Amino acid sequence: MTKSSQTPAEIETFLKQAIDLAMESLRATGARPFGAVLVKEGRVIATGVNEILATNDPTAHAELTAIREAARKLGSPRLDGCVVYASGHPCPMCLAAMHMTGIEAVYYAYDNEVGKVYGLSTAAIYDEMRKPFDQQKLKITCVPIRPEGIDLYDLWRRQTTN
Amino acid sequence: MTKSSQTPAEIETFLKQAIDLAMESLRATGARPFGAVLVKEGRVIATGVNEILATNDPTAHAELTAIREAARKLGSPRLDGCVVYASGHPCPMCLAAMHMTGIEAVYYAYDNEVGKVYGLSTAAIYDEMRKPFDQQKLKITCVPIRPEGIDLYDLWRRQTTN
Repeated sequence: MTKSSQTPAEIETFLKQAIDLAMESLRATGARPFGAVLVKEGRVIATGVNEILATNDPTAHAELTAIREAARKLGSPRLDGCVVYASGHPCPMCLAAMHMTGIEAVYYAYDNEVGKVYGLSTAAIYDEMRKPFDQQKLKITCVPIRPEGIDLYDLWRRQTTN
Repeated sequence: MTKSSQTPAEIETFLKQAIDLAMESLRATGARPFGAVLVKEGRVIATGVNEILATNDPTAHAELTAIREAARKLGSPRLDGCVVYASGHPCPMCLAAMHMTGIEAVYYAYDNEVGKVYGLSTAAIYDEMRKPFDQQKLKITCVPIRPEGIDLYDLWRRQTTN
């Protein structure tokens, strides 16, 4: 799979599958309506739904759950060349995870504009995170302490280069 | 605890603990040097280290691991009023999770400027995520399909308001 090689037919197939997962999960458990399908070389290798209600894990978004399952199955934290199909607009947590794992592309069906009416938008989090650190609601402060006279990052470099 | 109520002494204590966790984990397992401590009302309720090497889970950052543990212990996905102390600069995935869970503040000791020299900076991911969707390396596309004649979000609203 090279970049941008997803065909309209496969995009529709996998998005439909992501929406079906969301719908099944909503109907079965009352979960928030989000599903995701993670595809490598045209094959589904992992899926996820929003599991926050069932697990109380605030990071159990559909996309993050699929990413974790895919990494477990592939035995690697790297997901280069994989494509995510999500029913909803990825939130910044999930999007950052996609960036960091090398996901190639993400397609989604319901954007934040649509979700806003239902309280299912993460646009406010995106807006917040676009601000400089010192202007975000969450107080973010660097306090550059270096206890014990040992520099953590120097130690890491010594351990990993020996 | 009201906003900004962390004293310099407690900030130093908990940051030192986060750095100690990172150092222990690095020494014991060769893990990437990151630790985090999650505090509620002055008490540590969860800790985390980077577990990617051990688990292949790309989301197992110290902060996200501590957030998951805290939510499990509290029995709630909300962490309002909690404070995170992290050895390193939080990445956008972890920062977004903090925003979404209601974390009040985060303090960290090693910023991305320092981490850059060691390949331990996430500044590039922040830069990428500040761009509009259509200019990011990861291809991000909304394809607003609505299969089956049932609107997923309408269904969710009906289920949750009944």
